[in-house]
Amino acid sequence: MVVHRAEPYNAEPPPYALADQAVTSLDTFYSRNHGAIPDLDPSAWRLAVDGLVDRPLTLSLDELRAGFPERTLVATLQCAGNRRAGFVQVRDIPGEDPWGPGATSTATWTGVSLADVLASAGLRPGAAHIAFTAPDVSELAGPREPYGGSIPTAKATAGEVLLAWAMNGRTLPRVHGAPLRVVVPGWIGARSVKWLQRVTAQAEPSGNYFQAVAYRILPAESDPDRARPGDGISLGSVALNCAILGPAAGARLRRGLVEVTGYAYAGDDRAVARMDVSLDEGRTWTQARLAPPDGPWAWQHWRVTVDLPEGETAITARAWDTTGATQPEQARHLWNPKGYANNSWDRIAVTCVP
Amino acid sequence: MVVHRAEPYNAEPPPYALADQAVTSLDTFYSRNHGAIPDLDPSAWRLAVDGLVDRPLTLSLDELRAGFPERTLVATLQCAGNRRAGFVQVRDIPGEDPWGPGATSTATWTGVSLADVLASAGLRPGAAHIAFTAPDVSELAGPREPYGGSIPTAKATAGEVLLAWAMNGRTLPRVHGAPLRVVVPGWIGARSVKWLQRVTAQAEPSGNYFQAVAYRILPAESDPDRARPGDGISLGSVALNCAILGPAAGARLRRGLVEVTGYAYAGDDRAVARMDVSLDEGRTWTQARLAPPDGPWAWQHWRVTVDLPEGETAITARAWDTTGATQPEQARHLWNPKGYANNSWDRIAVTCVP
Repeated sequence: MVVHRAEPYNAEPPPYALADQAVTSLDTFYSRNHGAIPDLDPSAWRLAVDGLVDRPLTLSLDELRAGFPERTLVATLQCAGNRRAGFVQVRDIPGEDPWGPGATSTATWTGVSLADVLASAGLRPGAAHIAFTAPDVSELAGPREPYGGSIPTAKATAGEVLLAWAMNGRTLPRVHGAPLRVVVPGWIGARSVKWLQRVTAQAEPSGNYFQAVAYRILPAESDPDRARPGDGISLGSVALNCAILGPAAGARLRRGLVEVTGYAYAGDDRAVARMDVSLDEGRTWTQARLAPPDGPWAWQHWRVTVDLPEGETAITARAWDTTGATQPEQARHLWNPKGYANNSWDRIAVTCVP
Repeated sequence: MVVHRAEPYNAEPPPYALADQAVTSLDTFYSRNHGAIPDLDPSAWRLAVDGLVDRPLTLSLDELRAGFPERTLVATLQCAGNRRAGFVQVRDIPGEDPWGPGATSTATWTGVSLADVLASAGLRPGAAHIAFTAPDVSELAGPREPYGGSIPTAKATAGEVLLAWAMNGRTLPRVHGAPLRVVVPGWIGARSVKWLQRVTAQAEPSGNYFQAVAYRILPAESDPDRARPGDGISLGSVALNCAILGPAAGARLRRGLVEVTGYAYAGDDRAVARMDVSLDEGRTWTQARLAPPDGPWAWQHWRVTVDLPEGETAITARAWDTTGATQPEQARHLWNPKGYANNSWDRIAVTCVP
């Protein structure tokens, strides 16, 4: 793992570790944390469901398991800071980690549907947002507060949002949110709140720092230290993105046929429709073969064989989605003060010898 | 109107005619036709609803009006060829009209919900697509066939898709599809089939030329005359786009404060979150004020005052959507053989005198 920060622990796998792995292994899955990792006793842990509901609930893990149908799905999680390293090359982003393309991973998640739990509690009219609260306290928030966030009720009740206790068929590891975390397929990882303790139905989005102030695209010229709650574009559904996973950036290769591989991901409500690779900075493109996704919430791996000439070659990749939209060209035009949502064309350079 | 072709009739309003008009007047609304405009007798006209349904229906206009709740909504329609002129500057596109940004218009539509009609007919399991058939015969299709298309059942039953007999409170004009047309909010205009005669529930998308062959993004290097059914990315939901409506491209203005206006539109499942204007080719941006939309299916007008220097200035515009995605920079990187979905930054040049 590439460890960006030990405390709080933030680490991503190197690109090669994600290549060809439809599902990411537990020890390879990226880890984004905003505070110290809680150590919750599963037997003492309870989930509160409250707010604009007819029947507030307090549920143990056993009650969750026994009371609702078990659901399993494959979902990709992607940090909003994924590929921030491309922004940092344009202009420094103080205080934020320079994630590469590895702040994206995919697991098989097992738990119950949030929709079922909310139906049991009985949502009242006016419950437009579902807020999540966790115990991990972040020094980043100003003032210091536990982590939280929310999603609109339409997403929360669509069926695919899980309250998950297992990952790849194993008990959820502590670092990934044990005993229970939210998994919001297609949305930025920040909404898949770990160490979940409370689910609140409410009229407005969460007022938590990580919903109201952070995880927002601010105008390039603005001062993030002066951002007020509600400023900027609040991130939810992930924007179309892709990355080259092999060969490695900077690799020295023998000239000739080389297989280029990577992932592509279209977020919540769209799918990847085409994947292009260019050896001439986007003047011409070759289409890569897309592997079929593991369901509607998973990334897709792709591969294409190209003929690399002697010397240095830039390899560029871009995805198209099912609406016919493709990625913007340059990270510099997307740069924003907190460095979120870099979905510009991915680029690496390699050098070939005879 | 700018008439691209008299037969079949294809015309768009000049940009200034769309400026500041939240709803486009009937004589200004763009007109995209693939064949001669049918002249249907409303009293003899019938709508057939068939295919994978429990109860096939044959409905007169009076029966439609009497049998289902009337619905009215504001929806923007956008031709998939909107802004093709920007592609033609890159490379010629034979046989396709060079639409400017005026192949986009907005109306208040009144009719019944397609969802209600389908519920009355009773969709059978396996009815994954809803196909529309019209009588206008196109010489463009090979072989020659009447116009048709389809949308997935999930969209058809979501409630917002109308079978409309009125536009801006007036009887639907013949050129816009009288007596009844489909209105698919958020999707390319090609699916809002005019002169509707038949609605068919079926397992597969429509095999009509305009669904299976046309209205698809083909790779830049492919030969569109050799495209086979199913090739390319089939267009449905509209991609994020914007246009500058004022000042006019090429205008000569007095230097100083000038108001720049335009529209932005995010298609089916997203909304416009921010609108930027640049006077330096995208190095720096000023945010424009977005007018609130007339509901979830309407474009948004925007305006911003900029200080134009003496001489020639390029004015560039781009929109951001609610996922934090923005438009790609260059039309040349999006160029495709049939010239669809140009959603690159919009650009005009103006000249200022003292």
